[in-house]
Amino acid sequence: MDMNTAYAFGKTVAAPFAATEKKVREELQKEGFGVLSEIDIAAKFKEKLGKEFRKYVILGACNQGLAWEAFGKEMNIGTLLPCNVVVYEADGGETAVMFMDPVAALSLIGNPEVASLAGMVKEKLERVLALV
Amino acid sequence: MDMNTAYAFGKTVAAPFAATEKKVREELQKEGFGVLSEIDIAAKFKEKLGKEFRKYVILGACNQGLAWEAFGKEMNIGTLLPCNVVVYEADGGETAVMFMDPVAALSLIGNPEVASLAGMVKEKLERVLALV
Repeated sequence: MDMNTAYAFGKTVAAPFAATEKKVREELQKEGFGVLSEIDIAAKFKEKLGKEFRKYVILGACNQGLAWEAFGKEMNIGTLLPCNVVVYEADGGETAVMFMDPVAALSLIGNPEVASLAGMVKEKLERVLALV
Repeated sequence: MDMNTAYAFGKTVAAPFAATEKKVREELQKEGFGVLSEIDIAAKFKEKLGKEFRKYVILGACNQGLAWEAFGKEMNIGTLLPCNVVVYEADGGETAVMFMDPVAALSLIGNPEVASLAGMVKEKLERVLALV
């Protein structure tokens, strides 16, 4: 099922969490994204607060070529990068895959050249999403 | 020197990069932020593109208590978290410290309860900044 918000886009898939995360990583790699960071949110809540949470991972995806251009145009853009991709347990045994919308997030910068790069990143992420 | 943009706030300090990064981490911890991710941008550009870049690190800072509340209000908020704090070499031997503005970034969600939490996070980050 497609899920679109003002700041993120994605869908739920009828597949387990682990298989979905693996597939997301594979498709990101095919589109030239490295995963520069990964945060296991459930593990952090358990560790810091002693609370149980659904399986939920944040992957920080970055296309280095486009990132190089972006840093050249806006030195503080690192405050909004990498592009987060989250995978989490949804209802009914499904798994959600959601991407930060780079066009929405980077529009905060107000730089047309950065907006153009954000559009290219979004197209790549949409191709990843279609194959997950 | 203060540096404020529509999406990030911070300043440059007359101190070396390494000492500044250490100080930022210490002050984040005092305000209850864990550093959940760290990305050495210069190392990544070197590794992936063979290009030299200034020292530039992205720290993913998260206050777990406020994050717990935020995830309860907006399950897809992980696409915009953690709060990035960047430290990089600026001109004239200075070091820049810039924070993602959580009020600006999380305003994309359009949820007043999340906006309230973002305001609390921003106040904490402003205290961190004042002590760096």
